[in-house]
Amino acid sequence: MHPFTDNPAEAVSSLGELKLIAAIRRWLGDATPDAPFGIGDDCAILPVSSRRQLVTVDPVIYGRHFNDTVAANAVGQKLLKRNLSDIAAMGGRPRAAVIALALSPQLKMRWLAGFYRGLAAASRRYKVPIVGGDIAQQPEGFAATLTLIGEAATDRVLTRQGSKTGDWIYVTGRLGGSLLGHQHRFTPRLKEGRWLATRREVRSMMDVSDGVAKDVFALTQTGAVPALEASLIPISAAARLRARNSSKSPLHHALTDGEDYELLLTVAARADRAAFEAAWKKKFTIRLSCIGRFARATSPKHINLQAFHGYEHLR
Amino acid sequence: MHPFTDNPAEAVSSLGELKLIAAIRRWLGDATPDAPFGIGDDCAILPVSSRRQLVTVDPVIYGRHFNDTVAANAVGQKLLKRNLSDIAAMGGRPRAAVIALALSPQLKMRWLAGFYRGLAAASRRYKVPIVGGDIAQQPEGFAATLTLIGEAATDRVLTRQGSKTGDWIYVTGRLGGSLLGHQHRFTPRLKEGRWLATRREVRSMMDVSDGVAKDVFALTQTGAVPALEASLIPISAAARLRARNSSKSPLHHALTDGEDYELLLTVAARADRAAFEAAWKKKFTIRLSCIGRFARATSPKHINLQAFHGYEHLR
Repeated sequence: MHPFTDNPAEAVSSLGELKLIAAIRRWLGDATPDAPFGIGDDCAILPVSSRRQLVTVDPVIYGRHFNDTVAANAVGQKLLKRNLSDIAAMGGRPRAAVIALALSPQLKMRWLAGFYRGLAAASRRYKVPIVGGDIAQQPEGFAATLTLIGEAATDRVLTRQGSKTGDWIYVTGRLGGSLLGHQHRFTPRLKEGRWLATRREVRSMMDVSDGVAKDVFALTQTGAVPALEASLIPISAAARLRARNSSKSPLHHALTDGEDYELLLTVAARADRAAFEAAWKKKFTIRLSCIGRFARATSPKHINLQAFHGYEHLR
Repeated sequence: MHPFTDNPAEAVSSLGELKLIAAIRRWLGDATPDAPFGIGDDCAILPVSSRRQLVTVDPVIYGRHFNDTVAANAVGQKLLKRNLSDIAAMGGRPRAAVIALALSPQLKMRWLAGFYRGLAAASRRYKVPIVGGDIAQQPEGFAATLTLIGEAATDRVLTRQGSKTGDWIYVTGRLGGSLLGHQHRFTPRLKEGRWLATRREVRSMMDVSDGVAKDVFALTQTGAVPALEASLIPISAAARLRARNSSKSPLHHALTDGEDYELLLTVAARADRAAFEAAWKKKFTIRLSCIGRFARATSPKHINLQAFHGYEHLR
């Protein structure tokens, strides 16, 4: 659905602020608690937690993260899920979210209802209450920015730092072709992330948003280079499908399409990898693949990552 | 300064993502700690706190909250300060902020540098580190959304709920005329808010963003009406100045201009108001005014608030 309308009767501007907020409460339903634990006060209040807190923020913007071909419901779900993926990447647990909308007065009420119902569905599914927000008018377009507060699930939080030369590089799931649907249908790897954070052999972790070819460098420490093997990359069916209609290989799509929202992690060089992989298999059905390791230099048998460009923002 | 440029060499798009993030780190300087406590990981990490957490989110949007006449530095400062005012309104203490930018590739680098230097200045002044963020491209314009995490300063958090018929209504500072400069130069009432939260006679509190004529209804409980007296309203010099060039009275400007960022609070009917006011005067130099009380009905000697309209969003 195109989100905007020239018909004032169908637009959010027909409601005025107070009625719009009342409508949002209705759309969110039990996904938002009563103030001061939900929308309606100067700040939302979160109960005391004995854990370190995690904070992440990501938007969805019309013309950038979605267009007319995407259902409003899917946009709302994705907004929460892409932030959940960041909490998963640290091995954390989500607590609560606040959302800031910047919208054109010409935004369709029906579109916004679909967006909030999608957000509410994801909020209930992942048990993350929407506790506050802001609505502001902007000259045109639609942008929703969600800030997600989480907490460490245990004493340990995994960051992007901590890998060493010799460490193994792993990725969950299969990669590439997200444009064919995965970019909206993905499941944030929350359970997997929490389990991985309890495993001492795991040294660093992140989620894959721009493609492994680019993102792996965020885990790469000075003096090391990622030595990935083409035969080890878990290529998705969607990446193979896309390659049929593009001039690029399935591997290229797997490494550069981005929006995989899988976990990329490193395992200590001297770890008992067989035991680690067996423990994973006992716990989860999704795939966990060792795709290479950090080396001092690459050889021709490794993927030449310079030949790939992951998604580069602002270009 | 106009924030946008047709000259690609002056625009943020000339840098690319990684160099832009490096520039932002430079502009923020010590206002952002190193990852994972600052920008650079999937989530920012906040240390354990034994207090309830407060969360608020507010944006600044080009064409809505500022225009070409406002210095980029002032826009950056205001973004943090308007969120600090929400923390002040609960009697809380700020901890850390994350910021999401949505910007046109035509945004001037020089403008963005000014914006971040202003944000950094406010960050240092109020000791609120910028711990994370996101940058996304949008077709045009500029919007920055800041989420501020705070914590209760004591066991008590003041909300908008809790006033009763008979309670007194107070406001800090002077009201109106914010367009003449106060909207950027205001000081969030953090110290005052924390002190007020320790006073048992204070029952509810909020900050004044849309004007007292509108905002007071957020503190009004069912069955009560705000009975304000015109002679008690602390009218700012700026409100009087504006009235000289408008068809409206200074009182009208004081009650409806909005962006006062003062605290509006209620005091229990049976409180020792003289002792309360004396304790305030011992502690603070800014004015604290009793402007009326909650009654069952108003009489002609009270302000007819229906005749005033505070700032209504999305109209």
